[in-house]
Amino acid sequence: MKKNGKIVVLGDGGWGTTLSVLLCRKGFPVTLWSPFKDYALYLARYRTNPRYLQGIPIPRSLNITADISCLEGAGLVVAAVPSKYLRNVLMRGRDFVAPLTPVVSVIKGIEDHTLMRMTEVIREVWASKRIVVLSGPTIAQEVARGIPSTAVVSSSDAEGMRKAQDLFMSPAFRIYTNPDTVGVELGGSLKNVIAIACGISDGLGFGTNAKAAIVARGLAEISRLGAAMGAKRDTFAGIAGLGDLVTTCFNPLSRNHSVGERIGKGESVKHILASMKMVAEGVLTTKSACGLARKFGVSMPISQEIYNVLFKHTHPRTAVRNLMERKKKSEGA
Amino acid sequence: MKKNGKIVVLGDGGWGTTLSVLLCRKGFPVTLWSPFKDYALYLARYRTNPRYLQGIPIPRSLNITADISCLEGAGLVVAAVPSKYLRNVLMRGRDFVAPLTPVVSVIKGIEDHTLMRMTEVIREVWASKRIVVLSGPTIAQEVARGIPSTAVVSSSDAEGMRKAQDLFMSPAFRIYTNPDTVGVELGGSLKNVIAIACGISDGLGFGTNAKAAIVARGLAEISRLGAAMGAKRDTFAGIAGLGDLVTTCFNPLSRNHSVGERIGKGESVKHILASMKMVAEGVLTTKSACGLARKFGVSMPISQEIYNVLFKHTHPRTAVRNLMERKKKSEGA
Repeated sequence: MKKNGKIVVLGDGGWGTTLSVLLCRKGFPVTLWSPFKDYALYLARYRTNPRYLQGIPIPRSLNITADISCLEGAGLVVAAVPSKYLRNVLMRGRDFVAPLTPVVSVIKGIEDHTLMRMTEVIREVWASKRIVVLSGPTIAQEVARGIPSTAVVSSSDAEGMRKAQDLFMSPAFRIYTNPDTVGVELGGSLKNVIAIACGISDGLGFGTNAKAAIVARGLAEISRLGAAMGAKRDTFAGIAGLGDLVTTCFNPLSRNHSVGERIGKGESVKHILASMKMVAEGVLTTKSACGLARKFGVSMPISQEIYNVLFKHTHPRTAVRNLMERKKKSEGA
Repeated sequence: MKKNGKIVVLGDGGWGTTLSVLLCRKGFPVTLWSPFKDYALYLARYRTNPRYLQGIPIPRSLNITADISCLEGAGLVVAAVPSKYLRNVLMRGRDFVAPLTPVVSVIKGIEDHTLMRMTEVIREVWASKRIVVLSGPTIAQEVARGIPSTAVVSSSDAEGMRKAQDLFMSPAFRIYTNPDTVGVELGGSLKNVIAIACGISDGLGFGTNAKAAIVARGLAEISRLGAAMGAKRDTFAGIAGLGDLVTTCFNPLSRNHSVGERIGKGESVKHILASMKMVAEGVLTTKSACGLARKFGVSMPISQEIYNVLFKHTHPRTAVRNLMERKKKSEGA
């Protein structure tokens, strides 16, 4: 970080707010940027984020603004906006950020159409040379409350990776390093598709056995895609792969799981999506996952069935039956 | 199977009863052996197993006995007794079973002292040449109720493995094959140790993030041991590894999870063990896991901490702190 290096966190969601609070508590000068002027004023005044992080007090020391020029002079930027909006936010901020400014992406998603990972979008728009990913099983409320949690930081820039590790590490938040950025990013993104599948299973009234099978077979197909994209298989068996997958699939508060559960219970997909304040990342990621599967010639049967349910009117029960009745009978296949 | 080949299921627990019922429903002639004369009479009379499989009707066609000589003439034996009693039961039945009689072990555990897997015990006592393992995320109640579930069969005998696959496969119970017997057996056994760790975490009031980390790091140490013992890493990422682990760690009804949860909440280990009708498999397996870790020179920090909590009076909070504060900071380490 630069000497005067304030940290700017882009995004007022649960995770952006949590990390802002955590870094503030550690004594860093932090600015939280919200895309919404009204909400920025609310956050600054009431020092609480009822929409995305109920019950967590926001320290007085956190600077809160909706002015994107707050990026000017930042020693480090944390990107925490939904994947769908990242490119637009980066465009708005591009004049204020230098290529050597470290950027930490904590976003889980794949850009629609381009099929780019978040670090690729950041590299393209900001020409950033120091990009780190932070990912893992991190339900924001738990981290904010100081309940023990872990995460992984990843970067091709070894020094930046270690610095990010030190930056976020705290007694109840343990940070591991893993240089496999592709694996860490994919694991965090694609698990949301499997979480929708688990939600559907729960919504249909199935049990833990079925969900465990979906998790295991889901991780297998994510790992397959990852391997084809140059990631390491071990990453998917780790905290940012399996760990994150398990958290999302078994946490009933997960937005992605909830979408699936409502589908499984018979609500129409159209109706569910229309009713959501913010579309669950997994819905968009399902498209991207199938796009990547085609691009890299990898079979991803669960993602494909979820795609059919979300976008092709396949009945969830038919989708599950298709998965259960697939011909292959050997586990490796 | 022999022409007249009845199937004998050894063990009246939830899983033994479920498999007996499932095979009966498929039209096979099945005998369920209970070690307890009184309970065998009860089961035969009331056609229900309230102690271990509440609410599931037992078909009239299931023959139930406490006479071990029922093994005579069996075309196939399913071993479903607790790991602790297997050797004794095998000794009692040895005169009735030929080395070529197929035996399917559905037992999850490692023999204390000898550190033998269940198939090794069967091979030693019965000189069996056709041994198959059936393992996976199979909560008995769910399988018995026909809620979709999966499992893996494994054997060095390829033909026996395929036959076992056909034997158990049914519309809601999907069976995969995997020739890695060591991996399949270890996955099913060692997950119970990690389930105790997850229970402790829950009992201490920690959240999903912490549990996900325990699951991911737990699977890593099981895989490490497995690799040292000649198993394939992929097996641990599959249904009989990860799948079974996840089921046990997230199912609040799991006996192993419950033991951990009570420990986490402050009950004394001595008191918990004394209060249990049947000691949770994971308690014994923790000893065996640490024994195997020593034997094969593999680091298994979670299993070791659980051992210390169970047998060395380590406070559960200290154990968790020890795990969170370990020096290593790179994921692969």
